[in-house]
Amino acid sequence: MATAIPVSEFQERVNKVQKIMERENIDSLIAFSHEAEPAYVRYFADYWPSFETTAVFIPVSGEPALLIGPESLTYASSRSKISKILRLTDFRESAQPEYPGADLSTWDDVFAEYPTKRLGIAGFHMFPHTIYTDMQRALGDSEVIDADYIVREVMLIKSAAEIACLRESARISEIGFKAVVEKIKPGMTEVQVVAIATAAMLDAGAEAIGYPIWCCSGPNSIQAISRPSLRKIQEGEFIHVQIGAKVSGYSTSIARPIVLGKCTQEMRNFMQLGCDAENLTIELMQSGTRASDVARQVHGYIKERGYGDTILYGPAHGCGQMECEYPFVETSSDIVLKENMTFHADMFLATPEMGFRFEDCIVITKGAAEELSHFKREVIVL
Amino acid sequence: MATAIPVSEFQERVNKVQKIMERENIDSLIAFSHEAEPAYVRYFADYWPSFETTAVFIPVSGEPALLIGPESLTYASSRSKISKILRLTDFRESAQPEYPGADLSTWDDVFAEYPTKRLGIAGFHMFPHTIYTDMQRALGDSEVIDADYIVREVMLIKSAAEIACLRESARISEIGFKAVVEKIKPGMTEVQVVAIATAAMLDAGAEAIGYPIWCCSGPNSIQAISRPSLRKIQEGEFIHVQIGAKVSGYSTSIARPIVLGKCTQEMRNFMQLGCDAENLTIELMQSGTRASDVARQVHGYIKERGYGDTILYGPAHGCGQMECEYPFVETSSDIVLKENMTFHADMFLATPEMGFRFEDCIVITKGAAEELSHFKREVIVL
Repeated sequence: MATAIPVSEFQERVNKVQKIMERENIDSLIAFSHEAEPAYVRYFADYWPSFETTAVFIPVSGEPALLIGPESLTYASSRSKISKILRLTDFRESAQPEYPGADLSTWDDVFAEYPTKRLGIAGFHMFPHTIYTDMQRALGDSEVIDADYIVREVMLIKSAAEIACLRESARISEIGFKAVVEKIKPGMTEVQVVAIATAAMLDAGAEAIGYPIWCCSGPNSIQAISRPSLRKIQEGEFIHVQIGAKVSGYSTSIARPIVLGKCTQEMRNFMQLGCDAENLTIELMQSGTRASDVARQVHGYIKERGYGDTILYGPAHGCGQMECEYPFVETSSDIVLKENMTFHADMFLATPEMGFRFEDCIVITKGAAEELSHFKREVIVL
Repeated sequence: MATAIPVSEFQERVNKVQKIMERENIDSLIAFSHEAEPAYVRYFADYWPSFETTAVFIPVSGEPALLIGPESLTYASSRSKISKILRLTDFRESAQPEYPGADLSTWDDVFAEYPTKRLGIAGFHMFPHTIYTDMQRALGDSEVIDADYIVREVMLIKSAAEIACLRESARISEIGFKAVVEKIKPGMTEVQVVAIATAAMLDAGAEAIGYPIWCCSGPNSIQAISRPSLRKIQEGEFIHVQIGAKVSGYSTSIARPIVLGKCTQEMRNFMQLGCDAENLTIELMQSGTRASDVARQVHGYIKERGYGDTILYGPAHGCGQMECEYPFVETSSDIVLKENMTFHADMFLATPEMGFRFEDCIVITKGAAEELSHFKREVIVL
């Protein structure tokens, strides 16, 4: 059996959100997702859309409904933990195909069934303007608010089942990284390196890659966010490999710099500083610690050693269904770390010429954080 | 050298859009994309975002700009064919990370530089409501319209370079499908089947898979849109495999039903009907033909043979950067086919118990359509 979230937990999540909705005086909540950002819907329904978009509709009391596009009914029915499913034109593909004769629900139908004076939207910053406009037409004068904070409050502390999924993701990601270290050769394209990791992770039980994983080499190594290109990797340059497996919706990430052949002392020193800074980050991240203190201390450490210019952002961010989710460990963060929050310690550093990332998944405990990946954190010179 | 679009063609696309903008009295056009729907931005800038969103800003005259989020600068700089790049907070990740101290542009800066009384948005149905609201604040009373039709007008007829990319995509997709046919075995998971195709295509020069490719088997075979699951494929059931490679942004798709071992006469008849219906679709699709006539004739053919209930949508749809893009071949379509339009002939049929898809990429010519994939269209029983 694949590591997964028990069916009862999906219902518990809905119940928890309904309690907060009551507190916040919200009648209905819409959690929106699209193909590249499935987290909000998957969290409640276990459904991950493809091509079409989707949303979970949660009334303050009673059963939720899954809203989908015209073509996703059989797929959604096979995956969704929410049995009530409504098809709306608004969730069709962005190219707006036509479905002459199809029998679809409308927003008027939805709000006739769930009278709503105050509506919250989670996934607010992805929610398409045209869907918003159609919906508001049916809602009339009702108020619409950003409800990301409501779902975040429930998502923030991970359950044992969620941590088990992340642990399994880390185990499989490690298999992927080991395959890369074993097979990587000068002359391969960045895409071919990613192919090695992808095949190894899918073969080992991942349901998918966790995000658009990458290998970026030489001049491309300075990219904080990237995609693999058809550039051929070479000896003596930074190769920044970042991969992660998805397990029942949950994604971890392992990132390491790799150098094939000759590695200068300057490169070694820079990579070692990054490795040390990530070690410090993980050491500092314990239950009760203020996130901003972690960011300040780690950035201070990097600056003292003369690498202040190589910092782009804070040393860690939340993770779970999204590779990068709330909360963020930044000098501006006001949160305090709590047990069973999960993070990616994420040490990306880059000069204008070369860059790399060390990244690993950790679980906050009362003492030293639990590291989910056991892949050795070191400078990899092959 | 990878098959690619010449740099000059990106500038020509901008020029063509600017001419239509002049005709339509539009001062500025924003073409929006996110990770899963990169087409509009990639068409003008060759940039494919990851995690963060993006847009191309095209003034009615003068140079365009690429708008990106806070973390994508080095990545975007390495890929974008548009050299002017602006970072805006609005294009950050949907989880809304903070960037204390970052020096970012605002919509006020953008519209101060490009005074705009009438703005068009392409990718209108994906455009997030919160970005729309922020933008409108800076725009004041200016009018905002759906500009998908403007970009579609330019995208509709493919250039020789675009068709070369699709041809290369079809060649690589065929390599992927052959790898599947060679290695597929009962007991593999659907994900493992996809892993075979993915590794073969990435290794053969694809930059990525063209969309979330799938294998769906047995009860899952009835899914029109899908994702591979961890279900183990078995003998004697429909296995519906659909894959495609991405080459310089362009995606084709090959879909075939596969049966391992025993195949009943009922299954054979159903699959053969689908195969024949796709052959008829391709035969009918010639320059000068009305799309609705194709849909009507093909649906008539299927209905006459007693399979009318297995139809979900029309027999073909446009393709290019999107696996599924405008125009659609439906009974309601009002377009007439023209030379160098490209389509996926897409024959998805399903009963409540079993389904499959035949799919192939074609280029419209004055005579018989050119088929880009040469993978034999037949019932595959292994």
